[in-house]
Amino acid sequence: MELWFSDNQTDHVKVSVKVEKQLFGEQTDFQRIDVFESREFGRFLSSDGSIVFSEKDEFIYDEMIVHVPMAVHPHVKKVLVIGGGDGGVARELSYYEEIEQIDVVESDRTFVDVCRKFFPDNACGLEDPRVNIYYEDGLRFLRTKHDAYDLIINDAIDPLGHTAGLFTKEFYGNCYRALKEDGIMVYQHGSPFYDEDEESCRVMHRKASHSFPISRVYQAHIPTCSSGYWLFGFASKKYHPLTDLNVERWKARGIKTWYYTTNLHKGAFMLPKYVEDMLEEEEGRR
Amino acid sequence: MELWFSDNQTDHVKVSVKVEKQLFGEQTDFQRIDVFESREFGRFLSSDGSIVFSEKDEFIYDEMIVHVPMAVHPHVKKVLVIGGGDGGVARELSYYEEIEQIDVVESDRTFVDVCRKFFPDNACGLEDPRVNIYYEDGLRFLRTKHDAYDLIINDAIDPLGHTAGLFTKEFYGNCYRALKEDGIMVYQHGSPFYDEDEESCRVMHRKASHSFPISRVYQAHIPTCSSGYWLFGFASKKYHPLTDLNVERWKARGIKTWYYTTNLHKGAFMLPKYVEDMLEEEEGRR
Repeated sequence: MELWFSDNQTDHVKVSVKVEKQLFGEQTDFQRIDVFESREFGRFLSSDGSIVFSEKDEFIYDEMIVHVPMAVHPHVKKVLVIGGGDGGVARELSYYEEIEQIDVVESDRTFVDVCRKFFPDNACGLEDPRVNIYYEDGLRFLRTKHDAYDLIINDAIDPLGHTAGLFTKEFYGNCYRALKEDGIMVYQHGSPFYDEDEESCRVMHRKASHSFPISRVYQAHIPTCSSGYWLFGFASKKYHPLTDLNVERWKARGIKTWYYTTNLHKGAFMLPKYVEDMLEEEEGRR
Repeated sequence: MELWFSDNQTDHVKVSVKVEKQLFGEQTDFQRIDVFESREFGRFLSSDGSIVFSEKDEFIYDEMIVHVPMAVHPHVKKVLVIGGGDGGVARELSYYEEIEQIDVVESDRTFVDVCRKFFPDNACGLEDPRVNIYYEDGLRFLRTKHDAYDLIINDAIDPLGHTAGLFTKEFYGNCYRALKEDGIMVYQHGSPFYDEDEESCRVMHRKASHSFPISRVYQAHIPTCSSGYWLFGFASKKYHPLTDLNVERWKARGIKTWYYTTNLHKGAFMLPKYVEDMLEEEEGRR
């Protein structure tokens, strides 16, 4: 028997992974969650049929969304993670001694339970005593927060699914308000390659550029993401992702990584011409 | 009817592209060549079942293998392209007025004929009067050349298939001899991500580091390549890919690109930690 899981990246492209067996499958109030065991990607989790993360490549995503802002902001004490119920982002954050509080807001309790059971290497991040988990809607949680966080990480997965509210103009405005006067927000920016993905990528940059004085985009190669090429947004009130990068301070922490280096940090902001052109067009429209 | 083309990137991962129709299919003396029309990638060509290039993403590959060395070497007059029968590399080279001679060595004449018929936007590069096409084995062609070229581009596709001879230690040695005293060789370095690909990636770096005093690796995101993440080798007798990059000289040429910029050039050499570690291990073994 051969069992293949297929992820429809667009209507015309799919990536299929040979699986050894299915470990979990359930419809929650928010999404369909499945967990599979595979040779190539180890265990992986899918939401509504799309791969969310795998044991083999989650390090790329989690390192890039955490260490880039942490190497720039000089004194992060309070962090808000929206989504992030698998624990990978909290795990990377837990390596920083100066952080005092990590609030994780995840709407789907079952998602957290599943990750605790099947992905202990991610979920261990949620066991850090500085972590508070709120099972709430991220947008609603944000509305009550003012001048509260140094860093907000929007780890939500899908601008079209049950987390769509986290990609609206209101959301970016609320993030701005919830941040302290020198706060940074990083977020998933999607993939710019396929035509189907490009529009949401444009809209995100337009909204972030409208709300924040500094809005830049950086890249990583993540094989299980659409086209394998993923962008992150860096929206900031004060610190610039390159000129405020402090290489010595970050290296002195001695954090072990497999993808991130401060050199790669710089390169991640050097984008292909077609992506630069797209972003500049949206900046003109804001 | 739905027709899907599947590219087995490893034994456990495949990428499938929905095709409108098949335009060509033939077994030559060297390989099985097929051409398809698709909505997502436009026309694409496969060799022995693997996608070689598509209209939608060939610009990434062709720009990155040509403009990186051309922005470094100050006076390229004679170029050898091994493989490259589709014409995309020759097309990018043809934008440089200072180049006097472009020798393209392609073993499979049918491959060139097919590209001329179905991919005129690539094959136009072969019509430049400075281009000479040799229908020969690349390794044999090289053996007779000494101190002949400023730049060698190894555009051959597969270290395991009919072009395997172009990935041997002898090949790198012959390239070194065929280059002038300040010559540069660039080559496809494969993808470092999947375990199946990693070994050939290691071997290539070991061989190139053994033959050339300067041997560096750079990256690009190419969706139709294995895992979407592709490496190139930059092996050089004299010029360093970063310290000898001449931004002003390159920009003054006014070449229109969609992927390459001199800023991206720098970022392309800033590699993920796991790739850096792999390359350093091989340098220790050379």
